[in-house]
Amino acid sequence: MSTHTTVSYCAKRTLSAQATRCLNPDNINPHVKEAKYAVRGELAVKAEEYRVKLAQGDKSLPFDSVIFANIGNPQQLDQKPITFFRQVLSLLENPQLLDRPEALRTSFGYEQDVIDRAKVLLADVQSVGAYSHSQGAPIIRKSVAKFIEERDGFPANPSDLFLCAGASSGVSTILNVICNGPQAGVLVPIPQYPLYTATLSLLNAQCVPYLLEEEKAWGTDVNAIRASLEKAKSNGTDVRSIVVINPGNPTGASLGLDDIKSVLDIAAEEKLVVIADEVYQTNVFEGEFTSFKKRLRQLQQEQPGKYDNVELVSLHSVSKGMVGECGQRGGYFELVGFDPEVAAQIYKLVSIGLCPPVIGQCLMEMMVNPPKEGSPSHEVYKTEYNGIRDGLHKRAMALYDAFQKMEGVECQKPQGAMYLFPTITLPPKAVEAAAAEKRAADEFYCLRLLDATGVCVVPGSGFGQKENTLHFRTTFLAPGTDWVERIVKFHAEFMAKYQ
Amino acid sequence: MSTHTTVSYCAKRTLSAQATRCLNPDNINPHVKEAKYAVRGELAVKAEEYRVKLAQGDKSLPFDSVIFANIGNPQQLDQKPITFFRQVLSLLENPQLLDRPEALRTSFGYEQDVIDRAKVLLADVQSVGAYSHSQGAPIIRKSVAKFIEERDGFPANPSDLFLCAGASSGVSTILNVICNGPQAGVLVPIPQYPLYTATLSLLNAQCVPYLLEEEKAWGTDVNAIRASLEKAKSNGTDVRSIVVINPGNPTGASLGLDDIKSVLDIAAEEKLVVIADEVYQTNVFEGEFTSFKKRLRQLQQEQPGKYDNVELVSLHSVSKGMVGECGQRGGYFELVGFDPEVAAQIYKLVSIGLCPPVIGQCLMEMMVNPPKEGSPSHEVYKTEYNGIRDGLHKRAMALYDAFQKMEGVECQKPQGAMYLFPTITLPPKAVEAAAAEKRAADEFYCLRLLDATGVCVVPGSGFGQKENTLHFRTTFLAPGTDWVERIVKFHAEFMAKYQ
Repeated sequence: MSTHTTVSYCAKRTLSAQATRCLNPDNINPHVKEAKYAVRGELAVKAEEYRVKLAQGDKSLPFDSVIFANIGNPQQLDQKPITFFRQVLSLLENPQLLDRPEALRTSFGYEQDVIDRAKVLLADVQSVGAYSHSQGAPIIRKSVAKFIEERDGFPANPSDLFLCAGASSGVSTILNVICNGPQAGVLVPIPQYPLYTATLSLLNAQCVPYLLEEEKAWGTDVNAIRASLEKAKSNGTDVRSIVVINPGNPTGASLGLDDIKSVLDIAAEEKLVVIADEVYQTNVFEGEFTSFKKRLRQLQQEQPGKYDNVELVSLHSVSKGMVGECGQRGGYFELVGFDPEVAAQIYKLVSIGLCPPVIGQCLMEMMVNPPKEGSPSHEVYKTEYNGIRDGLHKRAMALYDAFQKMEGVECQKPQGAMYLFPTITLPPKAVEAAAAEKRAADEFYCLRLLDATGVCVVPGSGFGQKENTLHFRTTFLAPGTDWVERIVKFHAEFMAKYQ
Repeated sequence: MSTHTTVSYCAKRTLSAQATRCLNPDNINPHVKEAKYAVRGELAVKAEEYRVKLAQGDKSLPFDSVIFANIGNPQQLDQKPITFFRQVLSLLENPQLLDRPEALRTSFGYEQDVIDRAKVLLADVQSVGAYSHSQGAPIIRKSVAKFIEERDGFPANPSDLFLCAGASSGVSTILNVICNGPQAGVLVPIPQYPLYTATLSLLNAQCVPYLLEEEKAWGTDVNAIRASLEKAKSNGTDVRSIVVINPGNPTGASLGLDDIKSVLDIAAEEKLVVIADEVYQTNVFEGEFTSFKKRLRQLQQEQPGKYDNVELVSLHSVSKGMVGECGQRGGYFELVGFDPEVAAQIYKLVSIGLCPPVIGQCLMEMMVNPPKEGSPSHEVYKTEYNGIRDGLHKRAMALYDAFQKMEGVECQKPQGAMYLFPTITLPPKAVEAAAAEKRAADEFYCLRLLDATGVCVVPGSGFGQKENTLHFRTTFLAPGTDWVERIVKFHAEFMAKYQ
């Protein structure tokens, strides 16, 4: 099912001569029209059409499978879910299974810790079919708080936590509260995950872009942030917040302690709410992940007073990491340093949507509180977890190595997240051919790649990129190396054709 | 965990003398502040505090349990989920169970149709942990289309269907597209489910209220709608849409064919998008449910031309009916008569949030396509379904009977949904006592009821009510009759006290 199908179907209905509808593309909410979201845009729709064609036995395409490298959707690409998580979730969906623990054990290998966990969660949520507290079930927020305390070495309070339907929904909530009019601005890294620009468009607020430094492994550039901030202020924008995606999407960068400090410095000086999108915090290959909360608490200890006013929102998700459970829609955000009355307004706002999916909440509990060493499910959990982690690292490196060998392609070494974001330098003739089709050159390249190979990636223009540069984002989730070879072969042919 | 807990905790943190935050209640998005949502407001927060107190062994309260009659949350009140649904969901969460069908059957009573359904769904969604198509998984939309066709006797197309995270999320999507500026208006019934007014506040659009006729079993009043529409137009409001909740929330009304036709007449004449909130369509005690889509198609056949331009959105949910699976967050909306380019904008908008919870989507599939007669799970399904239906009807009548006997309380006979919305007439002294506390009189009454009995209901002012009338909304979901007696006793004492 694609948008194109929708369009062709609906278009068949004819209106009588006089009748016109209320809604047409020119009179709907203009901010909805302005919003752009390339990750599921034209290329993704076309890729889905190819997939359906192949599934229907079509032999006319020059490839035999579609590779969805456009979106971080691990389980679509055959990443297996963690057994412990899914065993517990099956018991939550059907608690009648708990009536025969012996049969669960002997026939299906459910260990005692699986059964115990299901009982603890059920005692709190009562039924996964009941609405929970709008902030999320109390016991689950307690587990998340404990996880944060252990990760950071600083206290966390369940009352400051809001579970949400994936981090996307949390971002929307927070930006809704921050953006108080058309003059409100939010600093957004470029390149960025387009959720941010799309949500700012919907809210009719200003995106204040700041460029990341590709040559410094896509790190943050304090001077670029300050320059962008000053420029926006002089244009009358009330800059209220700064978004940081760490590890980076689409860049795959992992920020060091100094980078984090410099963002917090600016936030303290300029009174900016820091939105730390930390959904890839376990996808780190180089160095160690440090949360913005931890760094903030360290700085508050080191320099009492200076950072007291910093407001921070830290987001996490069950969709990424080694969990990869996107479809279950689980996430949370933590409020740090917020005015209690503002927090109460956030509570009211989320309560209008009643509650996040309870199954996704339960999965979040297990993600932050997996089987401990010595417990019966621990060994399998660890093997599965490490297997996924090592597999991702291996695939990232294989893709990186392939890019290294490709003419006109430059790529930073993978540090984290699930993506590579190489620069491509295309011959002038290719740029002309793109212009003739009224397309951006990177979009043109990605479309040709899809048509020729079935590999779907997203053009850099979907994330924003420095002027006169071209990129694309690809996940490194797809198994095997065949698809990487398809890219290499296509690229050589493309370059030869337009040379 | 309550907002109050949040507040008291956060308030403990002190800011240094100079430091001030970016966000305070006076500079956040004013539309968030304006939004009201009483269903989970002060009363609900207080009720949750009482529940926690009781759970901790507190003996100081004059009741031994809290009855959450404020919200339609059946499984919180011990309504059992349908076995077939939950068995299939357990297999979707842990497909490894499918490796031993014999053990599933002998140890846990899983019938073959349970196993078959799980396999069909898994073949389509691949994993419930993978993002689906943003409109929802293709096979699930096909089932929903088939259900609509069988319900209405008119065709439905999967491409016009959008699965969503409960109907609330669908309402938000649709209103987002319709509301194109501060002058945009939407006709909303009064009383209404406050999702509508809250969402319109968030979107900075106009709520154009039209009063339902309490004396005519809360039916729609064409004249009231037209008068309200004309008044809004003369004030410069661009009225674009009309919301109808059928069966009614909070009223419990069930609309007849003429009521539906009169709304469609106005929509056709005035070019209004009809938003038909039909989430209670199976909760009908009197007469038969007729969908707006069916009535529209009938009228389009009967009077060719006249209704061609009508745009209709029909919403449904897994949260209500005999399913009652609120926490799973499943819903859908169907677009009827929409411009294909507007539909494409709706697709883009929902794709920014990626996809609705896949487990909730699968549950929707089963709700619209339950075990057929003759299939092994059918008998149990039917028994469970009818048991829940009959229980709800019985409890509705018991509550209605109790209200009949209460002084100063008048209540329409229950027709559908999950609520009763009685009028209460309070003595002048009670109204004065409320005013002294700066509270609306119905709010005062509901707070005293909660404090005295542990029964949590929602004051009529949370839904809107005719001037100089007072109401409260109560669900009739809670089992037993003890809590009804608590209300009767409290009411008598309250009336005596303020007489």
